[in-house]
Amino acid sequence: MKNAKNIIEECEYVIKWDSETLKGNWESIFGNSNPIHLEIGMGKGKFIHEMAKNNPNINFIGLEKYESVLVRAVEKVNNEPLPNLRLICGYAEGLGYIFNHEIDCIYLNFSDPWPKNRHARRRLTSPNFLDIYEDIFVDEIFGGEKRIIQKTDNLVLFASSLKNLNNHGYYFEELSLDLASTEIPNVETEYETKFKSQGVKINYLNAKKSN
Amino acid sequence: MKNAKNIIEECEYVIKWDSETLKGNWESIFGNSNPIHLEIGMGKGKFIHEMAKNNPNINFIGLEKYESVLVRAVEKVNNEPLPNLRLICGYAEGLGYIFNHEIDCIYLNFSDPWPKNRHARRRLTSPNFLDIYEDIFVDEIFGGEKRIIQKTDNLVLFASSLKNLNNHGYYFEELSLDLASTEIPNVETEYETKFKSQGVKINYLNAKKSN
Repeated sequence: MKNAKNIIEECEYVIKWDSETLKGNWESIFGNSNPIHLEIGMGKGKFIHEMAKNNPNINFIGLEKYESVLVRAVEKVNNEPLPNLRLICGYAEGLGYIFNHEIDCIYLNFSDPWPKNRHARRRLTSPNFLDIYEDIFVDEIFGGEKRIIQKTDNLVLFASSLKNLNNHGYYFEELSLDLASTEIPNVETEYETKFKSQGVKINYLNAKKSN
Repeated sequence: MKNAKNIIEECEYVIKWDSETLKGNWESIFGNSNPIHLEIGMGKGKFIHEMAKNNPNINFIGLEKYESVLVRAVEKVNNEPLPNLRLICGYAEGLGYIFNHEIDCIYLNFSDPWPKNRHARRRLTSPNFLDIYEDIFVDEIFGGEKRIIQKTDNLVLFASSLKNLNNHGYYFEELSLDLASTEIPNVETEYETKFKSQGVKINYLNAKKSN
């Protein structure tokens, strides 16, 4: 049986991290100028694959740092390739090396909460990450949206996100502390399906930045 | 035994609602120019009484619409009068009639959540109430703070508050979805003590508006 590294390398929908060739070239990678949505920490890829299938006029990129997890998403893509979906292995800290104001929307689904105060910097909505996102979001003057859509069951992470996004000029378009009780359209992640069935409440935020 | 109305009328710390004499005159009512904090819906008054006792350099006003509830707060004041605490019976909708940019901070503790969408206007953080608060908050040029501090166990009310305060330019200074797990100083209300003992999580927001 092939190992994860081989499966990943052989999949044409997996983009090799390369800070010299990718930055500014995503339009040519997708072959069109549709908006690009990025999921940071896509895990096994159910969410991004389903989103890409449901929204053919949006391009999707799934970022995952662990090859052992990414490979599960690659299997989904191999079973059902989609022209508007690419996967990439890498770190959120490095996003500024592969994107040049090319992203319209970032999904943060059940990100590592880093609940201890001394690890707050590592949360994907900490001010240092929000600065990184500024560098990869399409500028508003070019019609960009600068949208972050977050789901999490973790109360420390969500409170911290609400505070940081509010204080960095994001406008809250939709917000729920119990997503299942709302009519907000929702594609579930693997993790979400499991925890929802246990009655865990899901927090949801759709926030948009205007300059 | 005296009825509620008599007990309330005889207490010198209860201010009679009067839109002709109160507005603009709170400094003389308290006899000093200390900042004034207002609790809307103080209920039985434990919170406001304890806050006033702990903070002698701040003036406190407790507003309650039901005399049958207000009387319980009056009893506390009669047992232990405080020079910096006044109570008043009235409606939040009318606050603009009795204050003229005289309030620095509003406390909303376990307000009626009005969870149905069609009642959203009645929530004390709905846009129409935020407009009323603009009229009673001290202007920033006069050193005013325009601060709202909310506690609630209700997820619909809290999500709605977060969204509305975000959309109206409030800066989130402190935010928690599980107050007991934080080190935020906290004076409990009667309701809070009861629900906390049942493991209900308390949501907390300290938000400040800058013009």
